[in-house]
Amino acid sequence: MKVYGMPYSTCTVRVLTTLAEKDEEGYEIVPIDLQVGAHKSPEFLKLQPFGAIPVLQDGNLTLFESRAIARYVAEKFEGKGTALFGKTVEERALVNQWLEVESHSFNPLIEPLVVQLVFAPMRGKEPVESVVKDHTYKLEKLLDIYEAHLSENKYLAGDFFSLADLSHIPYAFYLINVAKKGAPFTSRKHVNAWWEDISSRPAWKKVAALALTKE
Amino acid sequence: MKVYGMPYSTCTVRVLTTLAEKDEEGYEIVPIDLQVGAHKSPEFLKLQPFGAIPVLQDGNLTLFESRAIARYVAEKFEGKGTALFGKTVEERALVNQWLEVESHSFNPLIEPLVVQLVFAPMRGKEPVESVVKDHTYKLEKLLDIYEAHLSENKYLAGDFFSLADLSHIPYAFYLINVAKKGAPFTSRKHVNAWWEDISSRPAWKKVAALALTKE
Ligand SMILES: N[C@@H](CCC(=O)N[C@@H](CS)C(=O)NCC(=O)O)C(=O)O
Ligand SMILES: N[C@@H](CCC(=O)N[C@@H](CS)C(=O)NCC(=O)O)C(=O)O
Repeated sequence: MKVYGMPYSTCTVRVLTTLAEKDEEGYEIVPIDLQVGAHKSPEFLKLQPFGAIPVLQDGNLTLFESRAIARYVAEKFEGKGTALFGKTVEERALVNQWLEVESHSFNPLIEPLVVQLVFAPMRGKEPVESVVKDHTYKLEKLLDIYEAHLSENKYLAGDFFSLADLSHIPYAFYLINVAKKGAPFTSRKHVNAWWEDISSRPAWKKVAALALTKE
Repeated sequence: MKVYGMPYSTCTVRVLTTLAEKDEEGYEIVPIDLQVGAHKSPEFLKLQPFGAIPVLQDGNLTLFESRAIARYVAEKFEGKGTALFGKTVEERALVNQWLEVESHSFNPLIEPLVVQLVFAPMRGKEPVESVVKDHTYKLEKLLDIYEAHLSENKYLAGDFFSLADLSHIPYAFYLINVAKKGAPFTSRKHVNAWWEDISSRPAWKKVAALALTKE
């Protein structure tokens, strides 16, 4: 298998973490450096017509969209490593539900925060204060709902770690551990316990080291 | 089963269309009228803490997020009606890929267009011209990529109709058939043929009639 992407890209990291949870090492990373525009080269656009990373190639299958790749890896290596997608149709439904919440509610709030607080300063730019304030406020409101849910459930989809939890890690990591602006997480008892748990998993530790080295 | 929602809501319609493709009629619609704020009532927030429709109740399972519900219905009624999720792990991966494209690339462009061109006028408001212009332009660019893809594939995930195609219908319907601003679709040969095909399916005809009656 080949993963086209960069270890500093949150979407690539989502895929690498899924592979790591599966103890799957039969792949190579093909670097597609956004900073030099490699994702818009004609060859890469043949693989991914929208010009974004990551892409997974597995034999004849070329697949993009990080959450689709994560689901595929979880299904294909079902019997290997951590079970990430539930055991029944109902459990899988709840994993998908929380993957959708991550994708439609969490990601649109935390992504601009990480852009402002991590990626902009890396390029010598000042964060736009109004964006930071507004998105922090909305993220706090969202995490209030997570707090209530996690006070009754160890993980998002129930009592098992899943793709839904995993999918939150890349951006949360940048906000909490790189920008050091993790208060929306760490000030909430159950959200904090959940974060401590999911971010101390060996698979994530391995990928985090890689993400930081190649930054 | 119970579907909490409204037939005028695009996310509810995504679920109703999936049930219709499955020839599944064993459910009732419980109206949650956004116009009177029923989605923010304490009872409804117990089912759906984020306060949005639709919600599916099936025995002990309470499920929200329309694309998670659609996947669940497709899996649960796998042997019934139209097969919507592919036959192999690889086909399912491609259905998921295009569901993600719909959700991350198509929906964010077409939703504001439908809000401006359909829902705002219904409330006696003028569409904001700059939003219409900008989003139409970006939708055209996106549909150029669909056009190239659909010139080589009958449907998004390959040679079979799937959840990925279905998931595009609700907003496309409002833009093309209600706002009559379908040029981004109808001016592109293969996108147009695809739209003609997917919007003439009997399951969709039934749901469209319902969506329009209750408008
Ligand atoms: N929804 C896609 C998003 C892909 C995406 O936006 N990737 C970023 C890197 S995290 C990228 O390639 N950005 C470059 C660009 O879009 O020009 C996924 O989850 O894979
Ligand atoms: N991603 C969710 C979106 C749900 C959603 O936004 N539903 C709308 C109706 S289409 C709603 O309930 N809006 C009311 C609100 O959010 O206040 C899904 O696909 O189910």
